[in-house]
Amino acid sequence: MPLWKVYHPVGAYSAQDKKEFAEKVTAMYSRVPIPKFYVVMIFEEVAAESFYVGGASHGKFVRLKIDHMARTLPGPIIREWWVKAVDQLIAPFVRDRGYDWEVTIDEVPADLWSLQGEIPPPFESHAEKRWVKENKASPYGLQEKLPVGDLFMPGVTEKSAG
Amino acid sequence: MPLWKVYHPVGAYSAQDKKEFAEKVTAMYSRVPIPKFYVVMIFEEVAAESFYVGGASHGKFVRLKIDHMARTLPGPIIREWWVKAVDQLIAPFVRDRGYDWEVTIDEVPADLWSLQGEIPPPFESHAEKRWVKENKASPYGLQEKLPVGDLFMPGVTEKSAG
Amino acid sequence: MPLWKVYHPVGAYSAQDKKEFAEKVTAMYSRVPIPKFYVVMIFEEVAAESFYVGGASHGKFVRLKIDHMARTLPGPIIREWWVKAVDQLIAPFVRDRGYDWEVTIDEVPADLWSLQGEIPPPFESHAEKRWVKENKASPYGLQEKLPVGDLFMPGVTEKSAG
Repeated sequence: MPLWKVYHPVGAYSAQDKKEFAEKVTAMYSRVPIPKFYVVMIFEEVAAESFYVGGASHGKFVRLKIDHMARTLPGPIIREWWVKAVDQLIAPFVRDRGYDWEVTIDEVPADLWSLQGEIPPPFESHAEKRWVKENKASPYGLQEKLPVGDLFMPGVTEKSAG
Repeated sequence: MPLWKVYHPVGAYSAQDKKEFAEKVTAMYSRVPIPKFYVVMIFEEVAAESFYVGGASHGKFVRLKIDHMARTLPGPIIREWWVKAVDQLIAPFVRDRGYDWEVTIDEVPADLWSLQGEIPPPFESHAEKRWVKENKASPYGLQEKLPVGDLFMPGVTEKSAG
Repeated sequence: MPLWKVYHPVGAYSAQDKKEFAEKVTAMYSRVPIPKFYVVMIFEEVAAESFYVGGASHGKFVRLKIDHMARTLPGPIIREWWVKAVDQLIAPFVRDRGYDWEVTIDEVPADLWSLQGEIPPPFESHAEKRWVKENKASPYGLQEKLPVGDLFMPGVTEKSAG
């Protein structure tokens, strides 16, 4: 998580622009925190004659297609906030350069995903924390799949009493 | 909604073909009706040596990958009808030119989507109707999120009596 | 099912490599069994300056993005097994060549899918078996939509007795 595919006009971004864009996107996700190497970005130029919006060729349009697999955004408040946060992040690369733009985020199955042959460890597990620190995928065992936080939740009696 | 990605043989479509194709697709969706600028089409040439069907290189194959986010197709009748309608629409660009073809439609989260930084207004709302008319995204408030149709549904008593 | 999109470094694979890769992938799915022509693979070169992992340009990275529509992988055991099976299959094309790699599989609606204008027949139906044998899409009727296996399941009485 995530994969960012950026369809953009020919020549819209220099190599330096793309690097800065990728760094900003990576920084946003690393604050979740998730391992930085989870963030993959692919830039693809599309000629105006192959890019249509509302049936008309559009030479100044950027279409961002994002896949999330590591996390689901829970609940309407966080989902709206995230869409807005993404929009602020990308503004210097779209709005401020006079491009029109559109963003969609898809949520794909977290359990049908692998990195270097390893299925990513559970959210907030010891293994995930180690992957964040080492910034690369490596094998982990059952022990490391345990959560960093509390192992137990309040039991039946406590909940019934709640 | 929607994004149409068309993977096609090198030189399969002229700029004029692509424009006509995009116009036809846009016309189909605008009859729903949804704003025309929701319809984005990206054409991408794939060389025969990079395109495989059943393990064999295929130089006359068109693969259409469609994302829907504005609307979900409700129920089996409408879903089958839509698949057939799409197939009729594309026939002049695939079957009638001697290409093999395949189509898939994915339905991605409508609430993780933005256009020019605006989350699209609710289905059949006043704001959506204005977007259809103006054919561009613009800010809207709570008032415009209300439906064009009836504000109230039959209440508890009426339903119980029904 | 399935569509395999392979984003890879410029020049990573020769035409012969791509053919062998596609043949191996097709062989894996044909053992399910599903018709061979369901398996589509698209290779796409991405220049290092357009490919970012963790905010850094990466010239030796392969990103595989797979869509499944014919089948859903049922349950956690089979899902994990499949991810591992895919990883073994691709190892000669990624790990053994010194590339880093990542794989995601998405499951898209099976009922919003068509091949040559035909909605694929039900899983394990007579029509599907014929498509496997003929290795091409063709019309089929209600009769051929029936399952190859038992038409009836144990009835209410038997189940209650069970």
